[in-house]
Amino acid sequence: MIRVPTEPAGRLSDAWRLCVGTGRAELALRRDHQDSLALLQREIGFRYIRGHGLLSDGMGVHRPYTWQGARHVHHSFTYVDQVVDAYLERGIRPFLELGFMPEGLASGRQTVFWWRGNVTPPRETNEWTALVRATLTHLVDRYGADEVRTWPIEVWNEPDLPGFWENADEAAYHRLYEATAHAVKEVDAGLQVGGPAVSPGADGWLERFAEFAERRDVPVDFVSRHAYTSGRAQHVPFGVHQTLAPAGDLLDQFAAPHRELKGTRLAGLPVHITEFNSSYRPDNPVHDTAFHAAYLAPVVTAGGDHADSFSYWTFSDVFEETGVPTAPFHGGFGLLTHRQIKKPTYHLYAFMARMGQERLAHGGDHLVTRHADGRVTVLAWAPVDPSGLTPGPERHALRLSVPVGTRPAGEVFVRRSTVDEEHGNAYAAWRHMGSPRSPEPAQLDVLREAAEPSRGHRRLPVEDGRVDLALTLARHEVTLVELTPLEDETPPWWDERRLLGRETP
Amino acid sequence: MIRVPTEPAGRLSDAWRLCVGTGRAELALRRDHQDSLALLQREIGFRYIRGHGLLSDGMGVHRPYTWQGARHVHHSFTYVDQVVDAYLERGIRPFLELGFMPEGLASGRQTVFWWRGNVTPPRETNEWTALVRATLTHLVDRYGADEVRTWPIEVWNEPDLPGFWENADEAAYHRLYEATAHAVKEVDAGLQVGGPAVSPGADGWLERFAEFAERRDVPVDFVSRHAYTSGRAQHVPFGVHQTLAPAGDLLDQFAAPHRELKGTRLAGLPVHITEFNSSYRPDNPVHDTAFHAAYLAPVVTAGGDHADSFSYWTFSDVFEETGVPTAPFHGGFGLLTHRQIKKPTYHLYAFMARMGQERLAHGGDHLVTRHADGRVTVLAWAPVDPSGLTPGPERHALRLSVPVGTRPAGEVFVRRSTVDEEHGNAYAAWRHMGSPRSPEPAQLDVLREAAEPSRGHRRLPVEDGRVDLALTLARHEVTLVELTPLEDETPPWWDERRLLGRETP
Amino acid sequence: MIRVPTEPAGRLSDAWRLCVGTGRAELALRRDHQDSLALLQREIGFRYIRGHGLLSDGMGVHRPYTWQGARHVHHSFTYVDQVVDAYLERGIRPFLELGFMPEGLASGRQTVFWWRGNVTPPRETNEWTALVRATLTHLVDRYGADEVRTWPIEVWNEPDLPGFWENADEAAYHRLYEATAHAVKEVDAGLQVGGPAVSPGADGWLERFAEFAERRDVPVDFVSRHAYTSGRAQHVPFGVHQTLAPAGDLLDQFAAPHRELKGTRLAGLPVHITEFNSSYRPDNPVHDTAFHAAYLAPVVTAGGDHADSFSYWTFSDVFEETGVPTAPFHGGFGLLTHRQIKKPTYHLYAFMARMGQERLAHGGDHLVTRHADGRVTVLAWAPVDPSGLTPGPERHALRLSVPVGTRPAGEVFVRRSTVDEEHGNAYAAWRHMGSPRSPEPAQLDVLREAAEPSRGHRRLPVEDGRVDLALTLARHEVTLVELTPLEDETPPWWDERRLLGRETP
Amino acid sequence: MIRVPTEPAGRLSDAWRLCVGTGRAELALRRDHQDSLALLQREIGFRYIRGHGLLSDGMGVHRPYTWQGARHVHHSFTYVDQVVDAYLERGIRPFLELGFMPEGLASGRQTVFWWRGNVTPPRETNEWTALVRATLTHLVDRYGADEVRTWPIEVWNEPDLPGFWENADEAAYHRLYEATAHAVKEVDAGLQVGGPAVSPGADGWLERFAEFAERRDVPVDFVSRHAYTSGRAQHVPFGVHQTLAPAGDLLDQFAAPHRELKGTRLAGLPVHITEFNSSYRPDNPVHDTAFHAAYLAPVVTAGGDHADSFSYWTFSDVFEETGVPTAPFHGGFGLLTHRQIKKPTYHLYAFMARMGQERLAHGGDHLVTRHADGRVTVLAWAPVDPSGLTPGPERHALRLSVPVGTRPAGEVFVRRSTVDEEHGNAYAAWRHMGSPRSPEPAQLDVLREAAEPSRGHRRLPVEDGRVDLALTLARHEVTLVELTPLEDETPPWWDERRLLGRETP
Repeated sequence: MIRVPTEPAGRLSDAWRLCVGTGRAELALRRDHQDSLALLQREIGFRYIRGHGLLSDGMGVHRPYTWQGARHVHHSFTYVDQVVDAYLERGIRPFLELGFMPEGLASGRQTVFWWRGNVTPPRETNEWTALVRATLTHLVDRYGADEVRTWPIEVWNEPDLPGFWENADEAAYHRLYEATAHAVKEVDAGLQVGGPAVSPGADGWLERFAEFAERRDVPVDFVSRHAYTSGRAQHVPFGVHQTLAPAGDLLDQFAAPHRELKGTRLAGLPVHITEFNSSYRPDNPVHDTAFHAAYLAPVVTAGGDHADSFSYWTFSDVFEETGVPTAPFHGGFGLLTHRQIKKPTYHLYAFMARMGQERLAHGGDHLVTRHADGRVTVLAWAPVDPSGLTPGPERHALRLSVPVGTRPAGEVFVRRSTVDEEHGNAYAAWRHMGSPRSPEPAQLDVLREAAEPSRGHRRLPVEDGRVDLALTLARHEVTLVELTPLEDETPPWWDERRLLGRETP
Repeated sequence: MIRVPTEPAGRLSDAWRLCVGTGRAELALRRDHQDSLALLQREIGFRYIRGHGLLSDGMGVHRPYTWQGARHVHHSFTYVDQVVDAYLERGIRPFLELGFMPEGLASGRQTVFWWRGNVTPPRETNEWTALVRATLTHLVDRYGADEVRTWPIEVWNEPDLPGFWENADEAAYHRLYEATAHAVKEVDAGLQVGGPAVSPGADGWLERFAEFAERRDVPVDFVSRHAYTSGRAQHVPFGVHQTLAPAGDLLDQFAAPHRELKGTRLAGLPVHITEFNSSYRPDNPVHDTAFHAAYLAPVVTAGGDHADSFSYWTFSDVFEETGVPTAPFHGGFGLLTHRQIKKPTYHLYAFMARMGQERLAHGGDHLVTRHADGRVTVLAWAPVDPSGLTPGPERHALRLSVPVGTRPAGEVFVRRSTVDEEHGNAYAAWRHMGSPRSPEPAQLDVLREAAEPSRGHRRLPVEDGRVDLALTLARHEVTLVELTPLEDETPPWWDERRLLGRETP
Repeated sequence: MIRVPTEPAGRLSDAWRLCVGTGRAELALRRDHQDSLALLQREIGFRYIRGHGLLSDGMGVHRPYTWQGARHVHHSFTYVDQVVDAYLERGIRPFLELGFMPEGLASGRQTVFWWRGNVTPPRETNEWTALVRATLTHLVDRYGADEVRTWPIEVWNEPDLPGFWENADEAAYHRLYEATAHAVKEVDAGLQVGGPAVSPGADGWLERFAEFAERRDVPVDFVSRHAYTSGRAQHVPFGVHQTLAPAGDLLDQFAAPHRELKGTRLAGLPVHITEFNSSYRPDNPVHDTAFHAAYLAPVVTAGGDHADSFSYWTFSDVFEETGVPTAPFHGGFGLLTHRQIKKPTYHLYAFMARMGQERLAHGGDHLVTRHADGRVTVLAWAPVDPSGLTPGPERHALRLSVPVGTRPAGEVFVRRSTVDEEHGNAYAAWRHMGSPRSPEPAQLDVLREAAEPSRGHRRLPVEDGRVDLALTLARHEVTLVELTPLEDETPPWWDERRLLGRETP
Repeated sequence: MIRVPTEPAGRLSDAWRLCVGTGRAELALRRDHQDSLALLQREIGFRYIRGHGLLSDGMGVHRPYTWQGARHVHHSFTYVDQVVDAYLERGIRPFLELGFMPEGLASGRQTVFWWRGNVTPPRETNEWTALVRATLTHLVDRYGADEVRTWPIEVWNEPDLPGFWENADEAAYHRLYEATAHAVKEVDAGLQVGGPAVSPGADGWLERFAEFAERRDVPVDFVSRHAYTSGRAQHVPFGVHQTLAPAGDLLDQFAAPHRELKGTRLAGLPVHITEFNSSYRPDNPVHDTAFHAAYLAPVVTAGGDHADSFSYWTFSDVFEETGVPTAPFHGGFGLLTHRQIKKPTYHLYAFMARMGQERLAHGGDHLVTRHADGRVTVLAWAPVDPSGLTPGPERHALRLSVPVGTRPAGEVFVRRSTVDEEHGNAYAAWRHMGSPRSPEPAQLDVLREAAEPSRGHRRLPVEDGRVDLALTLARHEVTLVELTPLEDETPPWWDERRLLGRETP
């Protein structure tokens, strides 16, 4: 039995909910996206949202035209306003990513993704910085400087990959960063700019980014990188399979910037892991499973020890990087499928959102917290084999001695919510249904219902101010146990045995 | 094993959902009432709703005034309109009950209930019939004759009880009925009028009502009575306990009018059981329990064999006959508590609403139906000891061979929803919480969640066009099992064993 | 022409929106009440809401019972919670009024209103103070002490009138106040208690209340009284007519407590006019008219100079003190009728809610304010003859020189919203319709539409930083004019004359 | 004075509301689109909706893949389902247009529009017909054959224009039509297929289509074409100006198919004008004006005399054929702008939706109808100069003698709703505001308010069963006048002169 201390070891950081990812910017105009975001914010409550394509042509910002024989550029914010308004209405702020390149400003034709984001440098740096300045000036005008100063501004995405930045040209990225960062600060010195938003494999990029920033005296307010643990993609039609490294590798990646930047001018800056997940593929079925929630539980609970944020990539399957999905479960990144069916990993986050602010205990299979009002919350998870070669153990036992307030005796109300291979698992229900590609509305209702965790409730006795909590977890289970000290208000005249059908002792 | 026939034994009658009860008319102005009704109609879908007090002063219809020295009566429909509009907007129609007596027209001061419905005859029959005519004329003007002709009109409530009709004066009731029925028909001969809405103990009232109607040639379009099975009330503060007769007694009461009216002019008329429940007390905790759902399951499934409707009294705890409730669970009649927490009996009805129209089998612990699209639905329930002296059996086994469509082989998707002592049982959760009298909003959320049935899903094989369905029911369980033949759309390249964490054979 | 100063004369006080009245407490359970309150708060935004009957039997708080042979009292908050939750959900807080007397605690049988509030002193003072303590303890437990300390607590209502307090017994009121105030402070010393909530005709009550409070050292945190200007009621069926004193009389009544309490220990306490209106009758048609808005405009704009709050009695016609209304327009107090038709006086308040915080000018027919963002808002109203013997002038001219920001030239966007005998006047439309007592849904839509102010928009030039604003007001008009300095973003290539159908100069 | 006949000249056809246009199919996934559609259906109620791009890659239907070395095509309906579900939930059905060409099936690379619809013939006719069959089979499976048989299916769009069909190759279109029509009928012989969806300038295409259909015995269930009246585009940045032909030209185009097909096998088939508008450009400001509503009034009121439907192109500015709009008013086709600001032409349709079914009179400036319940509705409009060189007359007078029911005397309630240069004209308000490109939320509210028609109400006397209705219309006004016979329910004791402020005669 693990004895949970009475005194907290510290606060549970909010890093896990600081940011979440989304597909390209204009997808936020979709109803499904907005409804999903509303649900997410109601039940989880992320602080920021980050996605690609703010400056791509789908957003219609950069608009060259000819007038009286000369070329001009108009900056238009019709969709930018609609997207940002939609975010703010749902209580989430943009984590701005400046990219990709508008066609009318691009120096080349290389694109990324099914939706063709242009990934070449600007043909004219001045026109790019004018675009950046106009965009930020507009945002400051519309939303106020105090507000926009809280929105991190990241320059480009994964410039170390040739698919995302032509030739992965590091010097060109440094030039882009320098021009962009100065343009941002010209608008308002209080705006926060950062980068380099590199992928997990970007050897030495952070160190060289620090050296460049120092050498050229370029503003950097935060540093960012991404983290994934998947191996080589084995393709099947409309999907891939991959092996995964152990989840601890993610924590290692989260911690890397602090390690790598030690001693540089960038040491001590906020570190944002602006994307993370197991697989970097939006068509890997692992994302849909209970295994995935149990695999990520140690990462989500501990990530805040290593970075200032780590942004789950992405909150919804409304995404489209590899095209339109061909089935409701297709291995998308989303915590939610199209039409808002919750995946097990959604619940890992929803459970985290119910944890208290005081961290009482944290182990390899559990996290215990306390709320200001005395409620104690336990998140526990079953161990997994990340290689996937073997399933996790069929049963996993955990026993905690939990301190619950100052009164030595009494009882607590215990509510347990569970996600595993059978519960809170719409993917499993969908497989039982025959994997329908176009579910009927009635089937969608069944799936949404199957996606809810199983719930149980009971009372447990308090002895010496503690509850003896014995938990048995099923395979790949993630479970939330909430203990609330109770006052029994049963009136003196009540005799439960007089209820019809009650057992009489 | 019970072999369910392939050919239906008939249609499942809609009598169970024809009508439901409500508290006094103006309670329909409350938001909780309207929200509860909306929920009820979305998930169950009753056809009519019946309650007391349409003509009581709380509705403000009968309004005497003096003008130029003379007494006049104005008929005002401000609240009648608001109530009926609220019903129709939610897809339910009024089953009109004409009563109680406006103070300004009453011959005495006797009242019933905490809200003081006057139960004395009219001082002036002409003024009463003018009131009836004005009310129905207004309804016909506002909603159309075609619509109002579908609304049954019942004269008074339980005139055989001295608490509801001064001295239980049978001759006075006959006079009231006669005047009223003629007034109704004067407005429109197509309106349906009926009575005598007697209580279970009304010996001989139906026969004498038939004799009176024949003798005086009075219009009667339907006959009505009530049915309850509870014994003497044993009082505790704010509540009572009672013993119950076996549920079969209710079916017997449903069948009584047909039996008693045989050979009279009223034989063959529609019979409406305009109120039924186990206990007739709105403060008997039995209404809140899983026992209650299991107790009533044989009644709700079979009642349509005996009467044209049997109206559960009532759909909501927004009620007030004995005053304002002192706790969320207080033994109210409601299928729903205040603020819409579902009770187990709610689910019995919600399960009925998912049954098909073809009745394949019906036994002491099960009902099997088929939908037009081939889905087969099984409702099963555990036996109870109605005396309440012993609890029902801890486990109850049932095994059915269910025909599922024309294809000899294949699989069905099976979804099971369960309510018992632990699941779909907010009352049990509330007891675990310490019976809070004023639950916090967060506690209400927990209760609403605890009120949802547990759900499971799996696949079963079809052999020779049949599924072998073995069910084990827990104590006081009511369960719904839905079997849907499935097409497996899994693509040929899919290999579930490649999913990480899957068992490899 | 009136030259509005550039520098503000002070801030526009929030006293006008600090509080608003409502019918008895449990009416807040009605959907119409809640929907009306939601509308009110969206468009106006009052801070507190005050009504009668918190402790009357309709709320079910005081519940005597017998157990083991002895009398006990249970305190139940089922409806109190629902009512207060409903308020807070809509962003308004309760201004608590402690009264009337529960039947089980009353010393007599005298009641007030159609709904029969008992107005006799408590039979047992201890049982009354136990009720008060239990109620406030519950509220503090549920909503937190910090919250409840912001809710003023007023003891009883209009004890100077024999209809509201048996025999208008002043000594008995002082005893009630003393016991109650101490009970309140026992729960939490930070709770604010006050009185004596007297009617306009209560000669000397305030002075004697001050003397009593000093003599007995009784806590008083605020003083309260009511204000009305109507004369004798001339009855017709379901209504009355009355003459009115000039609106200035209301301001005089608002100012009276400060005047009367000068030199007493209560001098300097907050003064709350916890009810005001023209007529004190809920069936005087004046409440429904444009005349009424124009009559009250000088009061609502200036009242904050005289008292800390003045609470319009009441926000909705969902009321019932004289019974159920017999027509949508029946002279009710409400800013809104049943089913949310806005009356002209609603718009007076909605216009106030659009005023800025800096008060630039205030005259007999206008109020000019400026917002923090530079917008200037003008509220203007036509003079009325309060005797009602003559209509107000057919046209009333007003010309203002309005300062609009720092730029000397340019243009402002001007938006004008108007309510008068023809516009924003659902009562007039209803009269044109033939005064339907039971409007059809389609008629309700027409009435809601007719209730909206007429709106106009134009541009005006700025010269020397000022706009020359010439307004002509129709009879009984209240108008809001909003001036917004504009940036013209018309692109250089735009030529409005090329639009088809445009006049070409 | 025009004497409107008492007997109807016939029924007002529903052709005007049979269909409405929309942007490319996947725009229906947007929230703005769905909210706009919901508003449209609530206030107007079109029957069908037609747009391009059902089979384009944005919908993700045609999905080639390689498996075990061979090329296969998967047909995926993820978005088709979401789009059609969204339509049906809002009470509108799809008018299917089959096109454009999926990239993976296209024979060339030519595209149309900013969003790049491929307009080349299929590389493989078999793969095209497989796609058509799969799509329709899926729709029939999901929505039922009875439902889908009511959805017209049109083959391609404007094949007579080289921009929409490579080389405007007529023979190739005939081949496409033939293969497609047979594929449709293979799925279900009851499905309705038609074409050729030609543009206004398609000389001889209809005749040759008829001849081809007869020669090859190809199924044709309806014929379709488009109608526009604009001349050459004069470009400015982000917009064009054009002259217009008189509105009567549109009626002439509506009538053309009947004329041109006389004597062919296609004579007598339903004729659908599957697109019409003044200008065919989505960036012509004429679409935003009051002029436009007055210009189209004679077309919308009379079009049903000439064709079975004429579909306004389009209901919303959520469109994107020329890119993302740069301002809320940008000359888009929409009846509604982005974010649901109503344009004057929206109201022309909303007024039509309030007309009765009996057509009493129809002239050059008015249409008079009667409802089943006796209400009479008059739509009137001011004349315009379609050349745009001169504005319409400043005042236009119209006087009608309107029959209103059988009673010779009495009164009618008259409600008038007006749209003109100043009222119901958000474009004018937006110009007054300075043409803000990114309106603030508060400005959007002002615009939505300014977009509502002005409303007035009064009573008029009935003499000899007729009302003398004298109307004066402002420049470019469209007005709806609704006359409702009234019953005066004013009670006998009511004396309006006793209301304060009333004129006393």
